[in-house]
This record gives sequence, C-alpha cells and structure tokens, in this order.
Amino acid sequence: MKHLSSLPLRDIKINDNFWNRYTKLIPEVILPYQWNILNDRVPDAPASYCLRNFRIAAKEENGERLGTVFQDSDAYKWLEAVAYSLAADPDPELEKNADEVIALLGRAQQPDGYLNTYFTCIAPENRWRNLCEGHELYCAGHLFEAAAAYYETTGKRKILDISCRFADLLCTVFGPEEGKLHGYPGHPEVELALVRLYQVTGNDTYLNLGKYFLDVRGGKPNYFLQEMSQPDFHHIFPEFRGYDPAYSQSHLPVLLQKTAEGHAVRAVYLYCAMTDIAYYYQDKQLLEQCVRLWYNVVQKRMYITGSIGSSGFLERFTVDYDLPNDSGYSETCASIGLALFGLRMARLTRDASYIDIAERALYNTVRGGIALTGDRYFYVNPLEVWPDICIENTSREHVKAVRQKWFDVACCPTNIARTFSSLGQYIYSASENELFVNLFINNKASAVIGGSTVSINTITDYPKTGHVIFEVEADSMEFTLFIRVPDFAEKLLVSVNNNSADLKIENGYCMISKVWNGKESVDFSFEIRSKLIYANPQVRASVGKAAILRGPEVYCLEEADNGTQLAALSISEGVSLREEWQEELFGGTMVVHLEGEKSLPGDNENTSYSTAPNKKEKIDLTAIPYGSWNNRTPGEMIVWLHTSK
Amino acid sequence: MKHLSSLPLRDIKINDNFWNRYTKLIPEVILPYQWNILNDRVPDAPASYCLRNFRIAAKEENGERLGTVFQDSDAYKWLEAVAYSLAADPDPELEKNADEVIALLGRAQQPDGYLNTYFTCIAPENRWRNLCEGHELYCAGHLFEAAAAYYETTGKRKILDISCRFADLLCTVFGPEEGKLHGYPGHPEVELALVRLYQVTGNDTYLNLGKYFLDVRGGKPNYFLQEMSQPDFHHIFPEFRGYDPAYSQSHLPVLLQKTAEGHAVRAVYLYCAMTDIAYYYQDKQLLEQCVRLWYNVVQKRMYITGSIGSSGFLERFTVDYDLPNDSGYSETCASIGLALFGLRMARLTRDASYIDIAERALYNTVRGGIALTGDRYFYVNPLEVWPDICIENTSREHVKAVRQKWFDVACCPTNIARTFSSLGQYIYSASENELFVNLFINNKASAVIGGSTVSINTITDYPKTGHVIFEVEADSMEFTLFIRVPDFAEKLLVSVNNNSADLKIENGYCMISKVWNGKESVDFSFEIRSKLIYANPQVRASVGKAAILRGPEVYCLEEADNGTQLAALSISEGVSLREEWQEELFGGTMVVHLEGEKSLPGDNENTSYSTAPNKKEKIDLTAIPYGSWNNRTPGEMIVWLHTSK
Repeated sequence: MKHLSSLPLRDIKINDNFWNRYTKLIPEVILPYQWNILNDRVPDAPASYCLRNFRIAAKEENGERLGTVFQDSDAYKWLEAVAYSLAADPDPELEKNADEVIALLGRAQQPDGYLNTYFTCIAPENRWRNLCEGHELYCAGHLFEAAAAYYETTGKRKILDISCRFADLLCTVFGPEEGKLHGYPGHPEVELALVRLYQVTGNDTYLNLGKYFLDVRGGKPNYFLQEMSQPDFHHIFPEFRGYDPAYSQSHLPVLLQKTAEGHAVRAVYLYCAMTDIAYYYQDKQLLEQCVRLWYNVVQKRMYITGSIGSSGFLERFTVDYDLPNDSGYSETCASIGLALFGLRMARLTRDASYIDIAERALYNTVRGGIALTGDRYFYVNPLEVWPDICIENTSREHVKAVRQKWFDVACCPTNIARTFSSLGQYIYSASENELFVNLFINNKASAVIGGSTVSINTITDYPKTGHVIFEVEADSMEFTLFIRVPDFAEKLLVSVNNNSADLKIENGYCMISKVWNGKESVDFSFEIRSKLIYANPQVRASVGKAAILRGPEVYCLEEADNGTQLAALSISEGVSLREEWQEELFGGTMVVHLEGEKSLPGDNENTSYSTAPNKKEKIDLTAIPYGSWNNRTPGEMIVWLHTSK
Repeated sequence: MKHLSSLPLRDIKINDNFWNRYTKLIPEVILPYQWNILNDRVPDAPASYCLRNFRIAAKEENGERLGTVFQDSDAYKWLEAVAYSLAADPDPELEKNADEVIALLGRAQQPDGYLNTYFTCIAPENRWRNLCEGHELYCAGHLFEAAAAYYETTGKRKILDISCRFADLLCTVFGPEEGKLHGYPGHPEVELALVRLYQVTGNDTYLNLGKYFLDVRGGKPNYFLQEMSQPDFHHIFPEFRGYDPAYSQSHLPVLLQKTAEGHAVRAVYLYCAMTDIAYYYQDKQLLEQCVRLWYNVVQKRMYITGSIGSSGFLERFTVDYDLPNDSGYSETCASIGLALFGLRMARLTRDASYIDIAERALYNTVRGGIALTGDRYFYVNPLEVWPDICIENTSREHVKAVRQKWFDVACCPTNIARTFSSLGQYIYSASENELFVNLFINNKASAVIGGSTVSINTITDYPKTGHVIFEVEADSMEFTLFIRVPDFAEKLLVSVNNNSADLKIENGYCMISKVWNGKESVDFSFEIRSKLIYANPQVRASVGKAAILRGPEVYCLEEADNGTQLAALSISEGVSLREEWQEELFGGTMVVHLEGEKSLPGDNENTSYSTAPNKKEKIDLTAIPYGSWNNRTPGEMIVWLHTSK
C-alpha cells in the first residue's frame, strides 16, 4: 500500500459554476449563520447552547449546561469549517471569532487536559464511565480534526496544544496496559481524528491509540453492556435500555463484521478509521475488511442518491435491499461519512469506483442537505416526500417536508459546512510520482510531486458537460496523471496538447504517463447522458420503478413542475429523456423532460378501492436534480417512478 | 330512530363450517389458554400479572403490582368472553373459574366501590388525577361490559353488583355539577359500557354519565393538558410528554371533529358510544356526525382488510389515503372496534353497507389476528410482511413475522376471544316487526318479534358459496325479513317456499314482508366471484397495484405457495382468477390461482441498481385468504400486487 494524500487546501482555488453556489456561501452566509446559531442568536431556531456551555464549563457564566451530550462537537465542526474556509478566503473577522472560541476552549479545559462541557458541568463523577452514550471521545475527535485543520491553515498552535493535552490524557486513560480502561467510543470518530492528529504532530502514540480503539472494539464481554451493568450506571438516552451492541458496531471485532450494521454514521466513521489504520499499519487483512464492508454498503444497503440508513428509528442499517423511499433515514452526516470512506479507499486502492460513490453522495444527498440560501438544512433525506404525512407523532415524524433552521440534534449543518469548505480534498490526490484527478471541478491548483511543483488548472462546466481541460505547467517533471473515468462516462476522448492519445485505463483511471514540461494541456471529454436506472427486484420499495441518473446527479420530480400525487405517475421503460439547460434555475441546471402517464381513479374518486382499473392520462414531466430539490415552493418530491413496458 | 337489537346469544346456536374453526376453539383452547396466561402459567410468554395484581390489591398476596396500567382489563375481557361462551356451551369448570375471579374482584374492590389494581396498589393518591393516561375509566368500562354479559348469561348478580357500586362511585365523581370532575377518559370505552350497564339495569344515571363524557370531551381548555400542568403530575407514559389531544380525540368537541384522528382504537370505541348515545337521546346531529366519521374512516383511512391506523408510532390515523402496506399498524383491536361501530350504525340506520365493512374487518383482520391453533396472536396486521425487516430496534419493530404467545400490552387476544364468542350479535338484529340477517353463518336461532317467537335456521356454506337457506317457523306472525345483500353479491336470486320472489331491496337489505306461518323457507343465493380490486391512485402505497377480493375475504400471497420476493411479482390487469376449493387447507378454503410475472435483475444480480430493465418470467401464483395467513411455514406475505396493462 503506497501513500496518496490530498493536496493542501490552500493550494487549490475553486471557482466553479456548479459548486460556487455553495462554496461562495460558506464565508458569506453559512459560517456567519452558524456562528449566530452557536451563540443562540437566531430567532425561532432550536437553541444550540453550544458556546454558552463552554462559558459555563469555564466558570465564566452561570446557568445549567444544556443541549445534547454531544453539543460541543458543533463548535468543533464549525471551527474545522472555518479553518478550511480561511485557507481559501482569508477573513480576519472570522478568524478573530474562531480564535476567541479557541481561547474559550482553553479556559474550559480542565487542568488534566479533559475537555467536555457535559461531563464537566453535569456529571464530573461519570467521566469515562458511559463510553457507550457519553460521546466524550466523539467530541474529542471533532476537536482534534478542527485542531489539525486550524493549525494547518493558520499555523496557530493554540487549539493543537489544547488537543494534544487532551489526547495525552486519553493515552493515559485508555490502552491495553493494566490499570487503563479497555474501552472504546460508543460513537466512532476519535479513531480517525487521532490519525489526523498524528499526521500533524508526528506523535505516534496518537496513532497507536487510534489502532487500539479498533483492536479492542467488539471484544467479549461487550464493554458497553458491562458499563450498563454497573450498579450506579445512569442512562443518558433512555432508549438505550436493552442496548444492542450492533448499534455501535461493537457486536463483533471489526475484522469479523461481515455486513454494515447499526447506526449508519457510526459505521462509516468507523470504516474511515479502519482504512486509515490499514494504511499506516500496512494491514492487508484490515483493508480487505474495509473492501468487504464497502461493497456491502454500496451494493446492497445504499440508496441511489448515495445515502444510507434505512430505519427511521435508530438511524440504522437494516438488511440487504431494504431501501424504503419514503421512510428511510438517509442522514446527511451518513453520506458525508460515506464520501470520506470512499475517498480513503480510493487513495489506498487507486480504484476510481470509490470516487463514483463519494461523488454520488456529495452531489445528491449532501448537497440536498442544504438550501441554496445556505441557512436551511435537511437531516433526513428520503427519496420520496409527501408533505401531508410528515407530521409529528407518527412513524414519519423524522421526515421533514422543508429544510429547517436548526435541530435539537444538529450534527448535520456544521458537517455540511466542513465538507463543502474542504471540497478540494476530494479533487486531487498525489504521491511522489502520481497526480490523481477525482472530481471535475473548475479550479487552479499547485501540487508538489517528487519535490517539484506542478501547477494544474482544471477548466470545466461539469456536470453540465463532461468536457474537462487540464492545463498543466511543470518544469520537466515525470509523473503519471490519473484522471478518473466515471462509471457513467460514454464516448471518452483524450488528447494531450491537441494530439489524440491512446486510452490507458486502469481501475477506472485514465493514465497519462510522461515527462511534463512547460505548458501542456490535456483535453478530457466524455458524454454525460440522462439514463433510466432500474432497481434490483429485491429492492422491494423500487421494484418495477425507474430513476433518472445524469452523470453524478440523481433526478427527482417535484410538485412545482409536475403537480401533486407524484406516486401516481408512471413512465414507459426506455422513455426518451430530453435535456434542457436552464440557466436561471437553481443557478444553472440541466432539467430532464419526459413523457409519462398519471393514474386517475377508475370510477369513484372519493373511495380508496374500486373494481375498475385506474384510467391513465398522458402528462409531460420535468425532472430536476435531487440535490436541488426543495428550493422552490415546498411540495411533493419523488425519485423512483413506476414503469410500464 | 327506531330500535333494533341483537338476539340474546343463548338463542343462537352457531354450527358453521367456516366459523367452527374458531368458535369450537373458544371453550377448548382459547379461554383455557388465556386463563393460564392470566395466571402466569404459560412458559416463555410475556408475564400477565393480571390475576396476581388483583390478589395484591385484595391484600391476599404480597409483592409489587406489575404490568401495564390497564392490565386489569385483560381479566375483564376474558370474563366477558367466558360469559358469551357459557351462553353457547355451558361449562361448569369454566364458570367456576370465572366465579372465583369475580369473587376476587369483589375482595379487591375498595369500600367506596373503586376498583383498579394500579391506582390501589401503586398510586392511591393519584386516583382520577391522570385520566389521560391512567385508564381507570377504560378498565371500568371493560368491567361493566363483562358484568352485563355475565349477568345476562348466568343470572348471577355478583359482578353486576360490583360494577354498579363502581359506576355509582363514578356518578358521584364525574358530572356537570360543581364539585365534580369535569373530566373524561383518556381512552374511550366506559361510555359505551355505561350504556351497556344501563341496558341491563335500567338505571339511567349510567346512561346520563355516558352522555356526559361525550358532551364534555374536547372542551377548552383541554382537560388532559390541564392535568399535565399540575405541579405534582406524574407521567405514566413518558412518550406522552408534548401530548397532542387529537391522540385521544379530545382536540375538539365530538360534534366538531370532521375526520378520524388519533389512536385508532380510542377513536372507534368513542364512535361506538356516540352511536349509542345518538340512539338513546334520539340525537340526529350526533348520528350525522357518526355517519361523517364512519365515511371518513372507511372511504379514506381504512385498509382493504378492514384495518385502520396507518402509523406504527402511536397506533394512529394519519391523513386520507395514507395506507402504507408494510409499516402500518392495523391493530386487531381497532378492527374489532370498527366492526362494533359498523354493527351499531347498521342497527340505527338499517343500512347494510355498514355490515359490509364490519364483515370485512371480522373475516380478515380480526380472523388474521389469531392462529388456527387458537394460542398465537397478531397485534399488528400489515398487508405486506417481509420477515427479514421485522427486526427489533428498527422502524418496523412493531411488525411481527409470526403470531406471538402473548404481549406486554395484551389488549388484542382477549378482545378476539370476546368478539368470536359473541359472533352471534352480528348475525341478527330485530325489532317488534323486523328481523334482520346481517351475516351468513350456519345457525339455529329463535327470536321474539312482537311478543311471539319465531325460529330461524340458517343453512349455508358461506363464504364458499353465496347460497343461504333460511328455514323460518312461526305461528302466523307478520314481520319483515331483511336479508343483507352484500356489496359484492352478483346474480341475486330469492325464492320463498320455492316460488321465486320479486326482489325488493332497500339500503342493501332484501325485504320479505309477509305473514309467516308454519314452516317456510327462503332460498337466498348470490354469486361470489373472485375479483381484482384497484386502489385509488391517491393511495400511494398501492397505486398501480391490485388486490384479490372474494366475497368478504381479501386474498394474499404467501411465500409457502409462491416463493420469496413477493414484491417482485406482477399481474396483468384483468388476469383471470381460477378458484379451487381445498378441503384440507386451513379447514376448508377457496384458493385462487392466477398467472403472474416475476421480475428478475436485468443484469448484475448482486447490486441494487442497473441500467438494464428487469427481465420477467412467468409464474403460476396461488392466493389464500388473508385471514388464514401465517398458519403454515412462516414467510413473506403480500396483498397488493403490481399490475401491468
């Protein structure tokens, strides 16, 4: 296993017709809005309490520490997003706010390095005594990720020092040695974050602890059940009575888990860490296990939109091919975790198919998780929404018909912020003699390859078209340019300096190996065509239906274009799809027109059942990208349409 | 509004090829099995604690009173079922057990007449202080229903006296007068039971209290929210925080409720009481309201199987046409309540269409709620079951793939017992010059009409065929025989004493008005044909699908006959249905054969999605009655099949 790493974000300047609609919002809207949220300044939004909690922990404010047990992590993810944003767009005001938060963290940190407002303020006697529910290690992980990012961007050590003090404490508390706790986090996250902390500090005790958390996970007897059996154990989540260790992927050692089980976000964060550890310890068995779990997820437990988690209750995986469209969970954070997992797998295996999935998750579910205004969010991303049934106190209560200002459990909005502000990490990977292009996003970047610097301009209007020009400028450098050939690409053509080149494709990457000297250009083009996708008949919710996929984008039908009762629509198998570019819609969007039929009641339209078959009328349908849905008048939405021969 | 009443159960002897499979089980299996359950003698079944709780309340046993707050009602419903069973089949052993339970109730009753083990043992200070959750009035109602039944069958006054003492207490506690509580039950039941108690005692203070509970329901400010706002209020159900009064139909006065809302069982029990009170107070406005709610339920919020309650969470109604097949609730008790509501409406309006629905509920959902062995039960009755997803800690946890020995919340099994043991109440209704036949069940009955006795033998193999012979024996009596013409009946023929008669049909009843003298016979026959039923396209879960209905019976496909992946099956609109009588199956059953197609993956069978449309292969399908499902090897089941033109 050879190392591939992302380029530093400060070396990538994104200016992309498609992504600017989000990346420009990050400093202008998203981070300021979330800053106001964290300070409880947004009217009618669920209170965050997040920064207030740190002030209480620092004994600078009186009052009760409020919010979920993992509320601290919202500040950390915001800081991480700020760090990425500062790398792209310096902003003294934003940096000042971040520095003040970091100073506050320092004051809230306990003398021994411990930092967690819940346990410090509410249950100091229960530190490390409820790893299952307490999220202490989860929050620590997000702190470490923020620290690594902030240090890399700003060079300021303050948050890194806070993190290292805390991580040093963790190393004294957890580990295989006698007298240490042999526990591990109820919500994986700190494992990948310890790797990240190792990457910036070079301190391999952090890496070792990350590995230890994986090694010890799922041993018998189950650590969490042992915790819960303690006489003075106190549940933080009442619903965790009767705890199933599979919920936290602790039912078996990670090497023995054959299918993706339990809480989807927990699962993919764990798999990310497994991939990291597999690399640093060159553990082929662990990598094979990552491959196994990846394929279980993406082949059998993933929605076409790159979303995961079929059960509204406990936000979890269920069984292969159980993918209900209107009642699944499809949490935004889970798709972010899936993209992170895919990116790591691609780096480790040099296989572009992992990026196909990561791209699907980013372009559809993660993008769908945020409004084009930047200040409204989805937590749950189903593939079919009938607003009338998204009502409280029902089985579909978790589905929201419109994006929300914030959430009581608010993991997703800051997660979207840190994902979109670090989009650059997905574009390139590099080694000492390789440069990989994964995503097609208009940008100017420079990469250090084998000690020399190459600059690369990517010029594209993707996903409007599949035409991508790479302007490479180098000083007599030999390296291989790997350009991802998406699984949907057709009629691929490549020319180098206007001379058509033979295609050499390996593991989904088109490889151009040469000495690069001076200004050179690669013209890479493929056709993107709207296609109908059919579900495996084992996908009960979608058997007999088709969805529209165009490049990385899944399409959906909205009420705004197609009226109500979208479930009553059907199309012919193989119906022709007519694309139309609409410059004004959602900041520029390809819409897809197609002909369909709408079922009408056979006779009495006021009863549920009839002996008369439905009548059908022809109807012109218009589909838009799923990632852009719910940005006009709210209403119904559907991805999978009934088909007839 | 003219009175129609059921015939006394002791005057109806059922001996029916179809129903014997259950009615014979009542004394032989069902009541003894449930007796063992109530005494906690069934291994591996959830504990009932029910009779033990009464012994604790009577201070005859030490220990903690356990089980749900409404556990007492299981004993009451069992007693009610015993009463009906004794009317059909005297059984000294059973009667002795019942008498002992009744004596125990007497000893557990408090000096002031109060009887409730939960509040007596656990929270005596909270009597009547949590009407929303406490189920005191609900349990009282089931006691009163048992008392009326037991007194009518055995003539023994003991349980009636206990009930009257308790009801007298209720009359001093609740009512419009100052100093009384202006509250009403969180779970309707006592209202219809007070009417029942009035019917056997003639004491109209009980009737008035029943009416009062309806009158005061849903007033502002909401009584339950007021209860919850008391400083020392204690929730019995934690999930009732943030209580929505619509859950208990207390969001509006009953006359202003336009749609069926909230918990389905609560709703239909309330509507039963509204129908009763509409009759006794000759309240046309209330009757109109019953009609309005009935049609909202049966036209827009009812599954084709006569089941109700679309949300797995809170077992409640949602919105019109929201009828998910695999995740709905469809509680057995709710269909029992719907049948009781329909029976009352038919008696009050002389409209047979109400019986069409009651019959649908009884033949499908209620019947499906119990195994042919009598000792296994369904609480939830979905129209599509994929056992793999009926797993704990998911959104589908409420769906069970096999019938259960008992439940922690065990309202359904004893409710089935009292329903099937009182099946006779559905067969006939009578007034001083009318005899109505509602259900076609082989039986011998006698009815007092206008002071004289007529005997009527019903001879039929319904629902195998629609041929019914009525042998009437009377002594020169003039009355009208009303025979229900089911909504599915075709080619109806009627002859009286072998002379074909003109059909006079009104409100779904065929009317034969004459002087009946000596032995006469009516030959009533109609064709029962398997039909395809199509869903209104607004029923999103079933649009584009068809179900098979044969007479009152909805059909389903089981894995035992059709293999797995039933959701991948489709049939042609108008496919021919071939009926075959199978004498050995389920005690004699018409099965339906049809040709269908099964979708197969278009290409890679190991992934969820493909650009290739599914392939299809022909397959011979066999459907069985839904009410008989899950009596062979457990597996998948489906009611609604995809259709193609």
